[in-house]
Amino acid sequence: MRDLRVAVVGATGVVGPEVLSILHEREFPAAEVVPFASARSAGTRVAFGDDQLEVRELTANALAGFDLALFSAGGGTSKQFAPEAVRRGVVVVDKSGAFRMHPQVPLVVPEVNRDALAGHGGIVSNPNCSTIQLVVALAPIHRQARITHMTIATYQAVSGSGARAVEELREQSRALLAGEAAQSEVYPHQIAFNALPHCDSFEGDETTEETKLVNETRKIFADGSIAISATCVRVPVWRSHSEAVWIETEQEISPDEVRELLEHSPGLRVVDDPASASYPMPSEAAGRDDVLVGRIRRDRSRRNGIALWVVADNLRKGAALNGVQIAEALAEGDLIRVPEQAAVA
Amino acid sequence: MRDLRVAVVGATGVVGPEVLSILHEREFPAAEVVPFASARSAGTRVAFGDDQLEVRELTANALAGFDLALFSAGGGTSKQFAPEAVRRGVVVVDKSGAFRMHPQVPLVVPEVNRDALAGHGGIVSNPNCSTIQLVVALAPIHRQARITHMTIATYQAVSGSGARAVEELREQSRALLAGEAAQSEVYPHQIAFNALPHCDSFEGDETTEETKLVNETRKIFADGSIAISATCVRVPVWRSHSEAVWIETEQEISPDEVRELLEHSPGLRVVDDPASASYPMPSEAAGRDDVLVGRIRRDRSRRNGIALWVVADNLRKGAALNGVQIAEALAEGDLIRVPEQAAVA
Repeated sequence: MRDLRVAVVGATGVVGPEVLSILHEREFPAAEVVPFASARSAGTRVAFGDDQLEVRELTANALAGFDLALFSAGGGTSKQFAPEAVRRGVVVVDKSGAFRMHPQVPLVVPEVNRDALAGHGGIVSNPNCSTIQLVVALAPIHRQARITHMTIATYQAVSGSGARAVEELREQSRALLAGEAAQSEVYPHQIAFNALPHCDSFEGDETTEETKLVNETRKIFADGSIAISATCVRVPVWRSHSEAVWIETEQEISPDEVRELLEHSPGLRVVDDPASASYPMPSEAAGRDDVLVGRIRRDRSRRNGIALWVVADNLRKGAALNGVQIAEALAEGDLIRVPEQAAVA
Repeated sequence: MRDLRVAVVGATGVVGPEVLSILHEREFPAAEVVPFASARSAGTRVAFGDDQLEVRELTANALAGFDLALFSAGGGTSKQFAPEAVRRGVVVVDKSGAFRMHPQVPLVVPEVNRDALAGHGGIVSNPNCSTIQLVVALAPIHRQARITHMTIATYQAVSGSGARAVEELREQSRALLAGEAAQSEVYPHQIAFNALPHCDSFEGDETTEETKLVNETRKIFADGSIAISATCVRVPVWRSHSEAVWIETEQEISPDEVRELLEHSPGLRVVDDPASASYPMPSEAAGRDDVLVGRIRRDRSRRNGIALWVVADNLRKGAALNGVQIAEALAEGDLIRVPEQAAVA
């Protein structure tokens, strides 16, 4: 693999520093790594291993000459700058929702559908955090037994809403413990010691978070026939999303077979010994790469039903790690080049 | 109605004080209300309106002469003292799980199945908190359209585990915000800023909380054919349980019809305007009598599927209020007498 010039866009947000840390930790073959952010943050420094890198202001021309840009700065920034980057020959791995459902943009979780990278047109999308951990956990089951239906209830951490949400939970928790009132700015209601059935924004009677879980899962599995229903809920947890999941399969598969299958699948760790109170939890998943799966049992209310509980670090596998894994897969496949006919202009 | 002598057993726990407060607030026709607890708490005082009542030690003989005893002191105390009370002519409304599935013990939520009280043999059971709010929300739909399947994911408050659990969440939250380690005693793992897929204890691969939700719902609906699957999860919330619920019905019913039906049903309040971020939350339900229902929408993944979000105060409607409502219904039906052939001896 050639040594690459890599831009990390959104370096001062909640995901950007994780991207830098994971690039360093996994020894990504980069000749140079440059952090970018808005003008407001330009000139500040961010950690890259033991080094401190100076953050540059993001402009279209500043991206020229890079091979690869990892974007995690929100949909607006991606819509504006990702096509500009592609026009300048930079391959973009985008964490935002801007291009995920575009038919020419692969939506990739390397453990599940790395083959989809081959056809990229300059942009590869990194799925939504709650989708990534779900498909990592379910892909091996889907391959073996074909999943026909999924029901998902999420328990999502505040870091999924950015750094200000993390601060809001901290400040509200402090205030309420001290008997003071809680001030809400990021969320429409108090999040400390509460639960909000509202992630991202409402479009009619569903949230976009719920719609993403349905549409992205179908796209990654390349199977539009899977029936999926989700309720997404924000809970007062810093880091790691949890999901209560029920599936139905075409072929029968037992909980023991599921356990065996997942234990031997990439990116997964089975944590499932109820007798010793052993099951996945956000506190255990935070900072780890693996998606944790437990509470694997028969859903006796359905034919070929299985219930399980899936937890993963929303900032690592749910965001930064998956993005870096996409970059690694692109590098390994010699796919870090923009084709002449770029998909998104 | 005659004026009654009422014993409140477990008066110093987390539910007992709520029972006393609700008896007073609803002007229950009591000639006398006497709080009971273990020897350790005897002699302390508990509030009853503006009065302070002295707590007496619970013994079998101390209950003689009472008409009615409201027990909320845990399964062990109920198993030992409820049959003793019945033998002394006292009708028991029991909050514990000790007698709920006994075929001769009615399991009652007055809005749903008050008729079941008629056949009581001295003991009436008050269902588990997470069951009560579920059946209040679903009974009107079941009556109109017949529910054939339910899937439930819970988000349960720590007060459901008692006063020490409330203290544990408070102390852990304080410690973690201060950068100290969290000590766990009540729960097997940290509950602050975490989520535990573990309520009550495990029996095989399901928790007793999950089994209760299935069995109690079927008993209250007097319909053993309803298929039900539940995953019960403890979250760092002080008070009020939330439930993400999916149902399937035999007759088609639209979300608008469900909303209309629930708005005109007892014990319920519909809070459902996503466009203005209006939905039920634990912070809104705490201290209220009504079960709050929102996020009512079509589950497009199922034929005749409906999804909803149900929140209620686990200490009020989930415990103390439902117990007092059972007592009121018994009084109104002239049912506060132990039949000659008592059911549980």
